[in-house]
Amino acid sequence: MNQIEICLSPELIHLHDLKGKIAVVVDIFRATSTMVTAAANGVSGIKPVEDLESCKALKTQGYVTAGERDGKKAPGFDLGNSPLSFLNGKYQGKKVAITTTNGTVAISKAKESAELVLIGSFLNLSATASYLQATERDVVVVCAGWKGKFNLEDSLYAGALVEAIGFDFDCDGALAMSSLYRQSSGNLVAFLKQASHAKRLQNHNIEADIDFCLTLNRFDLILLLENDLLVSHKKTPS
Amino acid sequence: MNQIEICLSPELIHLHDLKGKIAVVVDIFRATSTMVTAAANGVSGIKPVEDLESCKALKTQGYVTAGERDGKKAPGFDLGNSPLSFLNGKYQGKKVAITTTNGTVAISKAKESAELVLIGSFLNLSATASYLQATERDVVVVCAGWKGKFNLEDSLYAGALVEAIGFDFDCDGALAMSSLYRQSSGNLVAFLKQASHAKRLQNHNIEADIDFCLTLNRFDLILLLENDLLVSHKKTPS
Repeated sequence: MNQIEICLSPELIHLHDLKGKIAVVVDIFRATSTMVTAAANGVSGIKPVEDLESCKALKTQGYVTAGERDGKKAPGFDLGNSPLSFLNGKYQGKKVAITTTNGTVAISKAKESAELVLIGSFLNLSATASYLQATERDVVVVCAGWKGKFNLEDSLYAGALVEAIGFDFDCDGALAMSSLYRQSSGNLVAFLKQASHAKRLQNHNIEADIDFCLTLNRFDLILLLENDLLVSHKKTPS
Repeated sequence: MNQIEICLSPELIHLHDLKGKIAVVVDIFRATSTMVTAAANGVSGIKPVEDLESCKALKTQGYVTAGERDGKKAPGFDLGNSPLSFLNGKYQGKKVAITTTNGTVAISKAKESAELVLIGSFLNLSATASYLQATERDVVVVCAGWKGKFNLEDSLYAGALVEAIGFDFDCDGALAMSSLYRQSSGNLVAFLKQASHAKRLQNHNIEADIDFCLTLNRFDLILLLENDLLVSHKKTPS
């Protein structure tokens, strides 16, 4: 039986051995939810970039640029970090370059040693779980957190994934978060709206983003990092 | 209203501002449970020491030495890290020097910037909560974890303390762990026996230690760090 473990913050990633494993990076509010939504709405590829300037510069190479810091759209970017911007195929066929406060940092750290990097969100939870079950590799869920700290939404997603794939674990994070997910899955939205980052987003009047990011299994795809570009597949890549 | 926050691992302590606050350091299995038990059984003071050699050397100054690494008694020490060693006043009036894998590291990190360091355990949960309520300072619970990783028992203690003192929080760790504690408090022992460190201890045949460490409110005292020595008080120090 394969194993799953949870890394609750990118600041703890050095304590996890990612070699030969699949890292599932998650930043529910909102980076990875946005990436999955963009992919489901026809963008041809998504380039996660750590710093603002490198990301912005990709506009000259034909990328649509999305930039967020501290929950707000960064100056000079085409878009912020809202999944809703990508609905209705508005950027179909385009490449997107994206940089965010936490999510793109976590992707960058995960790819240093993981065999494969997958992007997780509640929006494609089932598809991701099915893919991982079929792949039969050990999994480390890398929670993006908030500036290095534990956050509730990413950790609960990790717990949901532990529940969904049914792998073994010898990891207290997996034990705690799968229990908490089981307890709260009946009122997930109400529980997660108490999370500190959800409250921060509510202050920015983007409550619609929160509700969207907490929708389960809206999209039937997985999102994989291939040569520094996130590319979507219908569950099982060839 | 005062605030409480949880630092889930000593590796994340730099993300928490401890200045002017009370740090409650917790290492349920077993360092802080042992310290509280030793204090309740009449030792005159407990010196937490980070490294093995410095700790062992204190024997020449009349200290009883207690040393543990990876769950086992360290060679050359009088005692390991079992709270049961201190029952029945066996070391009454003695000074104890103690070094452990995780707990003494966490104490050392916490004292660098906290106003006051308190030692937490399930054994003196209520007394600690009452003291904190009376003191009216902000509180950071510092979980010792396991070699830097999140662990269940320390985090659940933190959740129990959040529940017990009723302070406000803007901390997802406090939200998650107080919810998980409320959910599991009816079967705390069964739930915590699934924790990875509890399983590790069971392999060392020290199940009696686990049961002891999970006893609620056996002792009515608080344990405070004063000039690098842990000293117990009947709730409110003068």
